[in-house]
Amino acid sequence: MGTSAWRSLAAKLGVEQPLIQAPMGGGITTPELVAAVSNAGGLGSIGASYLAPEDILRQAQAVRALTQRPFAINLFSPVGPTKSVDPAPMLEILARYHAQLGLPAPQSPATALPDFLGQVEAVLASAPAVFSFTFGIPSASVLESFKSRGILVAGTATNVQEARQLEASGVDAIVAQGSEAGGHRGTFAGPFESGLVGTMALVPQVVDAVKLPVIASGGIMDGRGIAAARMLGASGVQLGTAFMTCREAGTAVAHKAVLRGARDDSMRITRAFTGRPGRMIANEFITALEGSEAVLPFPAQHYATIALRGAAARQGDTRFMALWAGQGAALSRDVSAADLVKALLSETDTVLRSAVE
Amino acid sequence: MGTSAWRSLAAKLGVEQPLIQAPMGGGITTPELVAAVSNAGGLGSIGASYLAPEDILRQAQAVRALTQRPFAINLFSPVGPTKSVDPAPMLEILARYHAQLGLPAPQSPATALPDFLGQVEAVLASAPAVFSFTFGIPSASVLESFKSRGILVAGTATNVQEARQLEASGVDAIVAQGSEAGGHRGTFAGPFESGLVGTMALVPQVVDAVKLPVIASGGIMDGRGIAAARMLGASGVQLGTAFMTCREAGTAVAHKAVLRGARDDSMRITRAFTGRPGRMIANEFITALEGSEAVLPFPAQHYATIALRGAAARQGDTRFMALWAGQGAALSRDVSAADLVKALLSETDTVLRSAVE
Repeated sequence: MGTSAWRSLAAKLGVEQPLIQAPMGGGITTPELVAAVSNAGGLGSIGASYLAPEDILRQAQAVRALTQRPFAINLFSPVGPTKSVDPAPMLEILARYHAQLGLPAPQSPATALPDFLGQVEAVLASAPAVFSFTFGIPSASVLESFKSRGILVAGTATNVQEARQLEASGVDAIVAQGSEAGGHRGTFAGPFESGLVGTMALVPQVVDAVKLPVIASGGIMDGRGIAAARMLGASGVQLGTAFMTCREAGTAVAHKAVLRGARDDSMRITRAFTGRPGRMIANEFITALEGSEAVLPFPAQHYATIALRGAAARQGDTRFMALWAGQGAALSRDVSAADLVKALLSETDTVLRSAVE
Repeated sequence: MGTSAWRSLAAKLGVEQPLIQAPMGGGITTPELVAAVSNAGGLGSIGASYLAPEDILRQAQAVRALTQRPFAINLFSPVGPTKSVDPAPMLEILARYHAQLGLPAPQSPATALPDFLGQVEAVLASAPAVFSFTFGIPSASVLESFKSRGILVAGTATNVQEARQLEASGVDAIVAQGSEAGGHRGTFAGPFESGLVGTMALVPQVVDAVKLPVIASGGIMDGRGIAAARMLGASGVQLGTAFMTCREAGTAVAHKAVLRGARDDSMRITRAFTGRPGRMIANEFITALEGSEAVLPFPAQHYATIALRGAAARQGDTRFMALWAGQGAALSRDVSAADLVKALLSETDTVLRSAVE
């Protein structure tokens, strides 16, 4: 709590305010978005988990061409090998939707993400100020390769147990991902249900459990949320959904519209689009696949649905899009990233002052 | 946000601070607990939902003998008639556990709560300062009977849609129950999944959607949580789990011990003990009944398991107790209710001041 922890994390990150634009995959975190957030005094993050090493290098260069300020690059911690499963039942289901959208029949999907160590080399070569990760904890040698070059390392925890494991691994900061958050659950030390702790309960317990700075995330959409996170003891905040509707974000137009009009009761945790539990707005595809045994493990399901999602996004057909969203989505705005950062900071200031009037 | 909304709700409730001890059933909200909270400047609440009219009258008299201050009485909004289902499969499962604890074989359970209108008469006769309810919205004539006698009426919402319905019904205040909360989910306008919105996302959206004062609940355990709720725009706060470990609470000794040692990842939403989704700490009984079709509808399952739970509590056997708990349970303390209220207020003050230092 208080302003000293806040300022201390800002100094560590080398930014004016420890206000982090969350890493998001699927082309949402464009270089323009990342750079605009950093230029506005926050910390932009490239969601690089699905990118090949050369694309990571290219995106980082594009960001650097737009800002001199610090930024972050985020990767998934390596996930174990996908069990070999028969994709036929899922491909049969997908074929029906492909036909509806005029797509050719779906093909057997890739079953592995780009090689993790290759991605790590590309991140190291890109020399961001911060390396953040989720889904687990990379090996000690990987973490050390960042730390030895002065790159600050932040891991994601969804409960106290994971925060303790991250602290023991030697990370510099912990992102506490509350259950409100949109996108994949970062949970790695148990079933995803064990990581569905609301931000209000999660942040103070993580703050008490570790000595590291804690970055609150999940449901934070405006100055009220940022001020609340500070009261809970967070040293910084990370916002994803709030940045998805920014002009610079690569979010599909139809997705942005759905976010701004979202109801707080319309999100679900689902494996339907990627094989790994994540929060998004329920639609026809999610409902159809609920409880289906045809859903492939991550990342095979991600690759299996990528053509469908892409075509649906181009056609503005929200029935088959992955409508990632946190529970505060309705509070999102149609603004530039610079204006959003400015508004968030100004609102926070107003809310904090009002508390002692 | 700010102090004016806070003071305004305090004035409406007739208390020093709009800090409400949540109503809880099963003998947890003893007259001693309720009165101690009210005497300390907050608002104690009798959880009267399972009580017969004469017991409501008796409990209210007992509270009044201990305090001159305002207090609340809470009821479940009437739930539709239980579909008639065969209790035999559940009784067969219970029989095994009864045998383990040395209990006679379980009997066919009651299928209805005490008559709601009889309970309402008893609450009216008890003349509390506040009538609060959950699980739905009582009829207009019931709400009017309270309002016409100057009793403030507060309803429970778990998403924006429910908050709007409550406002339209004419209530005076809305308790926004975040997903972190222990106990039954109050969700009434959809499946319980539609009401699992975290406090951080729920409170500001409800505040924006209605003109009424909003009382934040779910995951609030200390001054950090209270200060955070104020930042989110809440006019008051309601804490349940935090009061369950107070000396005056009727919580079983073994239950109190489990709460204080709880992990944030150990709670689940389950129908196992009552037939209605509620948050508690996972144990053998919950795991055994997960997904079981033998679980009876509410309140039949409540009555079916009551003997088992009671015997388990007396024997300190947490495998078969309903270990109601919010996700912040580990932050609970072994103190008197008066000391807890005092500590909560003092902590809140410290946290709020630190924000602008």
